Amino acid sequence: MDYEKFIARVDNYPEEGIIFRDITPLMGNGEAFRAATQEIVDYAEALKVDMVVGPEARGFIIGCPVAYALGVGFAPVRKKGKLPRETVETDYSLEYGKNVLQLHKDAIQPGQRVLLADDLLATGGTIGASIKLVEELGGIVVGCAFLIELDDLNGREKLQGHDYFTLMHY
Amino acid sequence: MDYEKFIARVDNYPEEGIIFRDITPLMGNGEAFRAATQEIVDYAEALKVDMVVGPEARGFIIGCPVAYALGVGFAPVRKKGKLPRETVETDYSLEYGKNVLQLHKDAIQPGQRVLLADDLLATGGTIGASIKLVEELGGIVVGCAFLIELDDLNGREKLQGHDYFTLMHY
Repeated sequence: MDYEKFIARVDNYPEEGIIFRDITPLMGNGEAFRAATQEIVDYAEALKVDMVVGPEARGFIIGCPVAYALGVGFAPVRKKGKLPRETVETDYSLEYGKNVLQLHKDAIQPGQRVLLADDLLATGGTIGASIKLVEELGGIVVGCAFLIELDDLNGREKLQGHDYFTLMHY
Repeated sequence: MDYEKFIARVDNYPEEGIIFRDITPLMGNGEAFRAATQEIVDYAEALKVDMVVGPEARGFIIGCPVAYALGVGFAPVRKKGKLPRETVETDYSLEYGKNVLQLHKDAIQPGQRVLLADDLLATGGTIGASIKLVEELGGIVVGCAFLIELDDLNGREKLQGHDYFTLMHY
């Protein structure tokens, strides 16, 4: 399927000079959404995944249907203060300041095989932090899956050698 | 399935005196997550749904697997400033101040049959605003689905008579 035709290009968003790739038209098309999800499911089948983990909020859009299709659980990585029970946390640098991400302490059991899922691999800050949280709980990151990779931003370097899959490249 | 055993009770969160019902243990269990999603899918089958719409962020967790299973698209309702293209918007009152929610203008075509999905029906502010956005675009709200209804908060009054389904009551 030609997935690119369902990605909207938005110039100068969220700020001047940035080209934003909007996945909402892809999600909004039942056939494209199902096919794209199935590609990630196909990638994950061989990895024998026990859990899917995705960062808020667009990681939920990709990760939850993948978890449902695989018949495994989903655990959300959220910004500080959004998870109600005991968490592990880590931070990563943004252009200005830093972002703190959390994962419930009981979200992953030691030795569980985890697939990380998000819509976009850009600078890799979010996914790098998510990997760190999963590994702190003793989870094994067996793969990472994205709809889109922005190749020039070198986010793949933050994956620390973990296997990954991307449906589209820009 | 006894879904209640997968809901964590958190006292005094997000503030003193509030009992928070945490769905993350349910999502984290593959069997429970799939069964709960399937119950909503079963409810939706008879409604002949064209699109699923869910408010950020936990509405994505419920709505996206349901859309995937039904083979239809998903459109996110997001807080102001998170959607990159032209939107419709509405606000609803919170205890202090108000919250503005948006939906992309092209997310729903006139006449499409829409299922709204969220984790929780509490005061109904979010779902009432979401119904308004869908109807402003000419969509037909054929049903609403929740994992949990907090019965005493009377959120069902904000559904304006629309059909709805709830998996659990507290």
